[in-house]
Amino acid sequence: MAVQVTESSPAVTLGPAVALSCRECGQRFDLGPLFACQECFGPLEVAYDLPAGDPDGLRKRIESGPNNIWRYAPLLPVPEDVAGKPSLNPGLTKLVKADNLARELGVTGGLYVKDDSGNPTHSFKDRVVAIAVEAARAFGFTTLSCSSTGNLAGAVGAAAARAGFRSCVFIPHDLEAGKVVMAAVYGGELVGIEGTYDDVNRFCSELIGDPLGEGWGFVNVNLRPYYGEGSKTLAYEICEQLGWRLPDQIVIPVASGSQLTKIDKGLKELIALGLVEDRPYKIFGAQAEGCSPVSTAFKAGHDVVRPQKPDTIAKSLAIGNPADGPYVLDIARRTGGAVEDVDDEQIVAAIKLLARTEGIFAETAGGVTVGVTRKLIESGQLDPSLTTVVLNTGDGLKTLDAVAPTTGPTATIRPSLEAFRAAGLAG
Amino acid sequence: MAVQVTESSPAVTLGPAVALSCRECGQRFDLGPLFACQECFGPLEVAYDLPAGDPDGLRKRIESGPNNIWRYAPLLPVPEDVAGKPSLNPGLTKLVKADNLARELGVTGGLYVKDDSGNPTHSFKDRVVAIAVEAARAFGFTTLSCSSTGNLAGAVGAAAARAGFRSCVFIPHDLEAGKVVMAAVYGGELVGIEGTYDDVNRFCSELIGDPLGEGWGFVNVNLRPYYGEGSKTLAYEICEQLGWRLPDQIVIPVASGSQLTKIDKGLKELIALGLVEDRPYKIFGAQAEGCSPVSTAFKAGHDVVRPQKPDTIAKSLAIGNPADGPYVLDIARRTGGAVEDVDDEQIVAAIKLLARTEGIFAETAGGVTVGVTRKLIESGQLDPSLTTVVLNTGDGLKTLDAVAPTTGPTATIRPSLEAFRAAGLAG
Repeated sequence: MAVQVTESSPAVTLGPAVALSCRECGQRFDLGPLFACQECFGPLEVAYDLPAGDPDGLRKRIESGPNNIWRYAPLLPVPEDVAGKPSLNPGLTKLVKADNLARELGVTGGLYVKDDSGNPTHSFKDRVVAIAVEAARAFGFTTLSCSSTGNLAGAVGAAAARAGFRSCVFIPHDLEAGKVVMAAVYGGELVGIEGTYDDVNRFCSELIGDPLGEGWGFVNVNLRPYYGEGSKTLAYEICEQLGWRLPDQIVIPVASGSQLTKIDKGLKELIALGLVEDRPYKIFGAQAEGCSPVSTAFKAGHDVVRPQKPDTIAKSLAIGNPADGPYVLDIARRTGGAVEDVDDEQIVAAIKLLARTEGIFAETAGGVTVGVTRKLIESGQLDPSLTTVVLNTGDGLKTLDAVAPTTGPTATIRPSLEAFRAAGLAG
Repeated sequence: MAVQVTESSPAVTLGPAVALSCRECGQRFDLGPLFACQECFGPLEVAYDLPAGDPDGLRKRIESGPNNIWRYAPLLPVPEDVAGKPSLNPGLTKLVKADNLARELGVTGGLYVKDDSGNPTHSFKDRVVAIAVEAARAFGFTTLSCSSTGNLAGAVGAAAARAGFRSCVFIPHDLEAGKVVMAAVYGGELVGIEGTYDDVNRFCSELIGDPLGEGWGFVNVNLRPYYGEGSKTLAYEICEQLGWRLPDQIVIPVASGSQLTKIDKGLKELIALGLVEDRPYKIFGAQAEGCSPVSTAFKAGHDVVRPQKPDTIAKSLAIGNPADGPYVLDIARRTGGAVEDVDDEQIVAAIKLLARTEGIFAETAGGVTVGVTRKLIESGQLDPSLTTVVLNTGDGLKTLDAVAPTTGPTATIRPSLEAFRAAGLAG
């Protein structure tokens, strides 16, 4: 299936995508379900022939598109008629001007929260899965799969149901009951694996290489190069929602690091296409202290990311050996940003701060980005006089346990005015 | 504060709203925090001077408005500049063309799910609360309040936080832990009342009449006439998303009945303004069998709704004595619709059906509407050859308990290909 690109016979057509190219050695391959370079084992990413030369026309085309990520189809590895295919149609989530939070943090240059809890299954995963579904369709896969400990399982199950794929998702057997329900309710196969998340991943890698896994698209393995491109839409939306303008500073959570690198890729594309003015922007990565391999390397001035054993409430970011860690370091340094971390207590405080100021109930990953933003302002690394965008990539309803121990009623009283007066809450 | 309307001195300005008018005797009152007619104690609703005479201009104005309910500001009791005020900006949720579900139900005329789980706090309550907030602002209230057992508490807490109001919400003291967290996380006052939900409501009524409650806007009591108008936006959005066309049939959940009556009001306004063609539509009400006072009356041919003691998993619809019940009966009969109910088992089955076919995980209320739709088709009351819209008003993440006992992994296996082969899930 995977041969070098020949001009005359592309294997499949995915809009402006023309090839997979190795991030390390630059070798190119035909579009297909490949995830590692056959020359050097480097990661592959999608290469494009983007519609350059008419930025005004392209902007208008995008603006007249649907209110979801498919408005950016001309910049994504998807067929031109993608908007008509069955999909959860994620994206175009709110970019909330967070004036109350800005006052608390002392930001004067404009603070925005890009709130991806508004996606169909309430996390940014819907974006990446939607692109993977289109790749799966193009490659003739009939089963969608992934290993997951939470958000991704639900996103894959839901997208597969809507798009007419079979799904079979693998989770550690001892997941919390609530997460199991969210993964199972869409009616696909859900398999508990007796072992850790690492065991689940190892098993999935075996399955991909086996005839048992024939016709299976693992969204974050053999469809990963396409899947990852979905995060570019966060960059596109932020700039369009700012009035086709780059933000000065963006704070992005770092798990594998893929999202941060793809947002940077998206911003560079917008500049190259003339859709936004070419001027500097700074990218900041945010981690939980209990799983901070990239921020540790950043602060130590290292290029190499040393794996860690995760121990944090921010489970959606708990990847101890992040594949794109070195690229994150490179982007943060190149753009003049930073990578920072906050501890669990700061994460909970930040979740509550965002809820109290803007009415946005974020997942723990949102507590990480808001907490890191506060810390970066205090340390002087983030300039409060500049336009700043902070990502919230998921919904607090999915991580209730993080805030439950410290969140409850102000008072409990008998149903009488006297009792209410005594509680001192009038006014 | 509440005096009869005089042409020259309106108390406040709320866009096209000109008065409160009694639904029973027609008496009019100045806009203010009134909720019952001072002549006959009938319910009050907002009367308008709507922008008639230029449907094309109005359509264009709406279409060029923001991607939320404020695009309909010319038809709502809100100030003209409402879109610039701090709000959660709910609305313009997806109208999902549900072809997979249609196939399962045998609907050939086009089946759509209006999915309000996409609102900021993931229920339709964000719509009604957003309007109440603007009324509270206009009347000079500083505290937002409500009694609640779930969705509403979170919607009020979040909206108040963002809009800069103090909030104080009352709940029964023995609510489930998860619901308490969702209500408390936005940082407002949350008061547990030792008693039932009825006790909470009685206490709130006392508080409104007491100096202790001065400056308090109870969104669903003294702001209720404004609050209720928020549901009209569901009608506006459905028609606009259908290409400015009325659906033939709509299936709406019935708790107090307010939402159904306001959707009917909204549709009639669109017809009167010439925004949609004037042709018949049928409105269907959906209840849970365990709390079915309105469907019981409908099926018995009664005009009077006899109160029931609720016992159903559809807690967000569990209002045993629905204030707008008689109006619901009237609308269902006038439009040629019906009111029907389904039992808890059918509700769970319908939640799973919607999830499995469209990737939408609905709250129990969504299980009620989908289940009732199926039942109405089977009984021949709903015509499958006509365009049908089914409402999902909330998110399954909030009622995990309903599906948890019957939703789990397909299999649990050791991490080996052999074990996977034995489980029979390949293919």
